Amino acid sequence: MRFLSDNAARVHPNVWEAMRAADAGDAPYDGDALSQRLDEAFSGLFGREVAVLWVATGTAANCLALSAMVPPHGGVVCHREAHIEMDEGGAPGFYLHGAKLMLADGEGAKLAPQAISAVIDPIRDDVHQVQPHAISITQASEYGRAYRPDEIAAIADLARSRGLGLHMDGARFANAAAFLGLSAAQAAGDVDALSFGCVKNGGMTAEGIVFFDPALADVVRYRRKRSGHLQSKGRFLAAQLLAMVEGDLWLDNARAANAAAQAITEQAKQRLMHPVEANEVFIRLNPDEREVLRGIGYQFYDWGADAARFVASWDSDLGEARALGQAIADL
Amino acid sequence: MRFLSDNAARVHPNVWEAMRAADAGDAPYDGDALSQRLDEAFSGLFGREVAVLWVATGTAANCLALSAMVPPHGGVVCHREAHIEMDEGGAPGFYLHGAKLMLADGEGAKLAPQAISAVIDPIRDDVHQVQPHAISITQASEYGRAYRPDEIAAIADLARSRGLGLHMDGARFANAAAFLGLSAAQAAGDVDALSFGCVKNGGMTAEGIVFFDPALADVVRYRRKRSGHLQSKGRFLAAQLLAMVEGDLWLDNARAANAAAQAITEQAKQRLMHPVEANEVFIRLNPDEREVLRGIGYQFYDWGADAARFVASWDSDLGEARALGQAIADL
Amino acid sequence: MRFLSDNAARVHPNVWEAMRAADAGDAPYDGDALSQRLDEAFSGLFGREVAVLWVATGTAANCLALSAMVPPHGGVVCHREAHIEMDEGGAPGFYLHGAKLMLADGEGAKLAPQAISAVIDPIRDDVHQVQPHAISITQASEYGRAYRPDEIAAIADLARSRGLGLHMDGARFANAAAFLGLSAAQAAGDVDALSFGCVKNGGMTAEGIVFFDPALADVVRYRRKRSGHLQSKGRFLAAQLLAMVEGDLWLDNARAANAAAQAITEQAKQRLMHPVEANEVFIRLNPDEREVLRGIGYQFYDWGADAARFVASWDSDLGEARALGQAIADL
Amino acid sequence: MRFLSDNAARVHPNVWEAMRAADAGDAPYDGDALSQRLDEAFSGLFGREVAVLWVATGTAANCLALSAMVPPHGGVVCHREAHIEMDEGGAPGFYLHGAKLMLADGEGAKLAPQAISAVIDPIRDDVHQVQPHAISITQASEYGRAYRPDEIAAIADLARSRGLGLHMDGARFANAAAFLGLSAAQAAGDVDALSFGCVKNGGMTAEGIVFFDPALADVVRYRRKRSGHLQSKGRFLAAQLLAMVEGDLWLDNARAANAAAQAITEQAKQRLMHPVEANEVFIRLNPDEREVLRGIGYQFYDWGADAARFVASWDSDLGEARALGQAIADL
Repeated sequence: MRFLSDNAARVHPNVWEAMRAADAGDAPYDGDALSQRLDEAFSGLFGREVAVLWVATGTAANCLALSAMVPPHGGVVCHREAHIEMDEGGAPGFYLHGAKLMLADGEGAKLAPQAISAVIDPIRDDVHQVQPHAISITQASEYGRAYRPDEIAAIADLARSRGLGLHMDGARFANAAAFLGLSAAQAAGDVDALSFGCVKNGGMTAEGIVFFDPALADVVRYRRKRSGHLQSKGRFLAAQLLAMVEGDLWLDNARAANAAAQAITEQAKQRLMHPVEANEVFIRLNPDEREVLRGIGYQFYDWGADAARFVASWDSDLGEARALGQAIADL
Repeated sequence: MRFLSDNAARVHPNVWEAMRAADAGDAPYDGDALSQRLDEAFSGLFGREVAVLWVATGTAANCLALSAMVPPHGGVVCHREAHIEMDEGGAPGFYLHGAKLMLADGEGAKLAPQAISAVIDPIRDDVHQVQPHAISITQASEYGRAYRPDEIAAIADLARSRGLGLHMDGARFANAAAFLGLSAAQAAGDVDALSFGCVKNGGMTAEGIVFFDPALADVVRYRRKRSGHLQSKGRFLAAQLLAMVEGDLWLDNARAANAAAQAITEQAKQRLMHPVEANEVFIRLNPDEREVLRGIGYQFYDWGADAARFVASWDSDLGEARALGQAIADL
Repeated sequence: MRFLSDNAARVHPNVWEAMRAADAGDAPYDGDALSQRLDEAFSGLFGREVAVLWVATGTAANCLALSAMVPPHGGVVCHREAHIEMDEGGAPGFYLHGAKLMLADGEGAKLAPQAISAVIDPIRDDVHQVQPHAISITQASEYGRAYRPDEIAAIADLARSRGLGLHMDGARFANAAAFLGLSAAQAAGDVDALSFGCVKNGGMTAEGIVFFDPALADVVRYRRKRSGHLQSKGRFLAAQLLAMVEGDLWLDNARAANAAAQAITEQAKQRLMHPVEANEVFIRLNPDEREVLRGIGYQFYDWGADAARFVASWDSDLGEARALGQAIADL
Repeated sequence: MRFLSDNAARVHPNVWEAMRAADAGDAPYDGDALSQRLDEAFSGLFGREVAVLWVATGTAANCLALSAMVPPHGGVVCHREAHIEMDEGGAPGFYLHGAKLMLADGEGAKLAPQAISAVIDPIRDDVHQVQPHAISITQASEYGRAYRPDEIAAIADLARSRGLGLHMDGARFANAAAFLGLSAAQAAGDVDALSFGCVKNGGMTAEGIVFFDPALADVVRYRRKRSGHLQSKGRFLAAQLLAMVEGDLWLDNARAANAAAQAITEQAKQRLMHPVEANEVFIRLNPDEREVLRGIGYQFYDWGADAARFVASWDSDLGEARALGQAIADL
């Protein structure tokens, strides 16, 4: 009855199997056969040439990708509630050497061109003010909302017209793609780099950074080592990513998690804070109600004073999810 | 016939088993039961209260530990051939925000008080010169040499008398302890923080940072997150470290690797560049000789123009090691 | 008819004279007799032991002071419109190595305990969120508003109770003290460090950092050199600061500037955006009206779409100031 | 009888005069008429289009210039005794965000292609080692040695062939040009950026950064502000630089200083540690001998255990200089 976080879920058996298969000694770092296969595997997935690097965490993926787009004296536009602003312990400040996060508003923690312009248009082009160099969006957003292709395209147009890089935090990228019924290429749109989530989706210790511009990867290779993220037995990370994308596991797992989230939602629609478009469910619950649910055995995070966040995982039990929805309805 | 690197070795079965046992969902990050057990397990190992944090790599372990001892305007004395100077892609500059590595000499890549003094004594105590704030030594050294307890004590005395922190890079700490027949406490001596190697010693993706001064750990907890090293399924890293130290696996594996290194050495003594006190063997070999060995199927790194480095692992085959020694003798 | 900025004003004759007197060669950097006299002179001014360092700019003064209070993984609470957030080109990110500015609201660009608490109270004490380490306030504020002693005391109490450092940006400190009729000690209150403005107040190239906690100065001495702000002919900077404080020049100049600001205001009271408590006057003026004033020859900055900022200096002509007020009244 | 440092010398009357003329209020920062004239004045001096920024110190000039050539994960080759390595309090680590100084050897603190190659050739092009991105040389060197045009050309060729930037620290650039009888263009050669010294040569608080590649200046404009080096009364810095180069003052002052250095040398040739090619004189003197000279009233720095450094300035008295040489000869 654990709906605390997809971070706490189990590792998928296919991932375990791929890791076991990687055990036999190979070249260290990313010189092994599996790491060498990543570019090809992801190029297949996205239908165009990409370069892919593994790292251990989404924080590292996001910040390394951005570090190749933004000089220390620059800035990154992101949502006021983006993970890079709220939950990474200041990692963007570290990886970008003091560059600035420029906070924009938007319903459901999503950005739109107008909100981005509201942040960057007032910035005078002089040295007294930090200049924007990139935009970062999150697919699915912090509130489990999915960007539609036309929404991404509009932001990408803006980015291009202003000479800004475009990064996508895809910690729950698969959930967005599954919800929208889109291919990986469609769900990513025309971004320059994507943090491709794996750990929350049945992986163990690997996330991918997908570079649609290979010149960025050439910089990040050095930055990855410099940040202590070039693991010496990298084959075990590559194995996880390959297990995810060489079949449809990434989508299958996301569909399962999404289905469990919908199962929670069914009986609890009127309490929803946000439409459920991925595997996160935000529900209005006062402290007493949360107490009741915890008494039954449900685990979840409080979300401010009068709400709670429930996160379904690839291994969530549908029956449990429905029972949770019913328990909420019964409050 | 792989003697390229202990980085490329397999993961020990006990480690696999401990990781499998950690699969069942638990709290994310380091809130899980295994991560919570680390302090106690390592306090037992070292016979005094320590605080322990897992990270993915030795580079991260070294640099995070040092970052708590050295302000951005300070310096760290280390050997001219130390890993932090030679092989971490500039990570100390990143993690220490531009602090300076101050390079000392010493036989076998080991430091001694005199060599340290030769570096720091000429530094005027004024703002024009970077002031030292810490010393970093490597156990076993880059050339597989082990510090004896009295050698560490002499350096620790110097550090204390100058108000410097003392860090030990223990990527091959177990090998040194095994070679010298010392307890963990003896092999570490009176350092402030130790990077406790696990990956090269049969682990997969976890290294430990052992803080003998818990105030340092309180800083590094924030820095670990900030550097993207707080993994969300941290229980799998904790499991690896616990598997290493809750039995004698860390020593058993190191003994096996050391024995294989000695087996290589037996027939090749006269070509040794350094006494073999851990699992690395540096042997004088000209290019033609190296070619011959590679033709047989041995894998290893060149070490400059006229030598080679062979590294034995916990899973090295003793017979293969002896055969390698014989092949060298036969050249 | 220049009311663009006190940054553009002339250098006061006393300052020139003091600089000329400093010409005769002396020890370089801050080893000269004048630099050595700063601590004593400012200790006299503030009625307690202080350590004082000269630097070239307010940006350097602010950021160096904060760099001694805030670790790279920490944060600084400041007003959303503070100079460090809006006008220093990202210098806090540089000097604090990526630490975060935490933006609070407050009328007239002033902070109050409640507004600070609104920012820091929701921050969970865990590693996922940046923790505050200091508060920075501006005396007089960006809108020319002066903190009263009880207001500073309330903020200082909050800072102390939360273990936060307290910094005061005093680019127009003298104007606030002059307006309130306070001593330097009263106008600073119980802050840990003060950026003591001189350039806008009749100086040329020197600002002072006043440390009420000498341990902070000991760190900043190194950071000043490291940031390229230890000038080799520092005696010329020390001379400027001494000229300001060894008489009452700092107050006399501020009084003159304040009087000119009041002279502008007299006829234009109904258009004021903020009470005038220093030398800045913010006046509601639409683009046509601004055009008219510029046609007459007045120089000033636009302040958003429908306002303008006029800044008086120590050398502003009172008659011109009154004429400007009249011109505004005549619109 | 002051030969301690040209840093301690007086400000030249022409510089004073230019500064006085700049007093009348003008636009703040670098919007004033004098700052706007810099590019043209220096383009005239160098006979090609250059962009010039003023800063307060040579440390800031050097580090800002390099920061536009070297990414945080890169390195700069410089001499082991270069000012950026020895005397800037770690400023390169700060301004380059942890990039690495790569130390090369060379007689008289000068670099040559072979010495540079000895440092960079062994660096494997992989992510474990920091890669060089620039070379920094000093004209005249730390030991007062001047690079000849062919020497600079050889280094520039190497730099270009390796894709490295080339920076020249010209704290005593004028002294080198004067000694060699070269134009500014010849003394700089084909570098990308030059720190053009002014303070040691009769200036007060201004150094110039001359960018032969204007794209570098466009980056440094932002970095200058971000480092707190955009002074608000910048016209006083511009005035100093213009006074230096709009006549031949920069050369005249350097010739005077050089002549005084030669005057010291005449009688003391056999004790010279280095040929005197600028305004610094390094002389072998044991502690007793130094005591004698100090007893007479001479001021200078010890240089290690058995030598001393005497620096002549534009305002050194030739008679005093000769008398010093005689006093040394008399020892």
